[in-house]
Amino acid sequence: MKERGLLIVLSGPSGVGKGTVRKAIFSQNDTDFQYSISMTTRKPREGEVDGVDYFFKSKEEFEQLIKEERLLEWAEFVGNYYGTPIDYVEKTLSEGRDVFLEIEVQGALQVRKAFPEGLFIFLMPPSLSELKNRIVTRGTETQDIINNRMKVAKEEIEMMDAYDYVVENDHVDLACGRIRAIVTAEHCRRDRIALRYKKMLEVE
Amino acid sequence: MKERGLLIVLSGPSGVGKGTVRKAIFSQNDTDFQYSISMTTRKPREGEVDGVDYFFKSKEEFEQLIKEERLLEWAEFVGNYYGTPIDYVEKTLSEGRDVFLEIEVQGALQVRKAFPEGLFIFLMPPSLSELKNRIVTRGTETQDIINNRMKVAKEEIEMMDAYDYVVENDHVDLACGRIRAIVTAEHCRRDRIALRYKKMLEVE
Repeated sequence: MKERGLLIVLSGPSGVGKGTVRKAIFSQNDTDFQYSISMTTRKPREGEVDGVDYFFKSKEEFEQLIKEERLLEWAEFVGNYYGTPIDYVEKTLSEGRDVFLEIEVQGALQVRKAFPEGLFIFLMPPSLSELKNRIVTRGTETQDIINNRMKVAKEEIEMMDAYDYVVENDHVDLACGRIRAIVTAEHCRRDRIALRYKKMLEVE
Repeated sequence: MKERGLLIVLSGPSGVGKGTVRKAIFSQNDTDFQYSISMTTRKPREGEVDGVDYFFKSKEEFEQLIKEERLLEWAEFVGNYYGTPIDYVEKTLSEGRDVFLEIEVQGALQVRKAFPEGLFIFLMPPSLSELKNRIVTRGTETQDIINNRMKVAKEEIEMMDAYDYVVENDHVDLACGRIRAIVTAEHCRRDRIALRYKKMLEVE
């Protein structure tokens, strides 16, 4: 009996540093997550390999997959489609490996609907935490600046609501450490483990 | 606004190595949990300090605390009371520090009632995991031995049900690492963080 892998979705507001954190996680030798390979209709660039960098598809093939609901999420950017194929994610999870997805907030909301049991991590800009300190310590900012920051902060906090965890990106290494801790902890969750052991005992 | 600490309860079947794991956690320099000091009616031993090793109380004082429901959990062993005073736990949590409690299964169930928001970790004997492997790989054990192990395993799995996490004590260092990961992850939980930030924004 093989334990099914976890789907880990890292997302957050644009500019928060999702790509940097994802690269840092995969640059560590002991990372045993599988990075989810995206599908795209844009042409391969020099050196890009199909099935490694992307799954390269024609526009017709991609639109067929959209129609068949075989994409976890997808979006169109400057005339090209980008998306996450369900088949690859499902296959990897069923092999017992954790799949790591780094996507925009809109995509994450799509994935949440298709995969409610996924593990959704919101990468939080440190400015939110700094804002908190400023409010608490009453800094020297004008009321306008504070008000504007409060507005942005409120929007960011509202985005959090669909997520399970919030990780502050104060330092890339600290953020990576927290993400790894979250994955370790999720593998220790009683509901996952007890169910597995109960099933095992029932088999006999 | 100070974040309230977490109550971490480590428990599990007798003989699983709770004390060893707890000692290993507190032997690490960067541990910032506060160990919960127990209360007892037994006499202090040579070198034991009140408020450090234990809170030493008379039988009358202890029974008064039981009556006033000021103990998170308590039990009687060989004529002496042992228990966890609520006041000390509450004070430490409100200072924003995590409190670590290592107790027997019966005590943990009492704490769960008083403190449902606590973080309950079940330390699992590796034998359960070994059992799983043996069943799966069809070892050379007799059916009687397998049956007996299955019975014990079932009892242990039933104990898990009141817990949030299950940590296998295969190696003390690995178990400690998982427990630390669980605490880190719990501090990143969206419901804890979002609530805090929302409150912060409402204040202004």
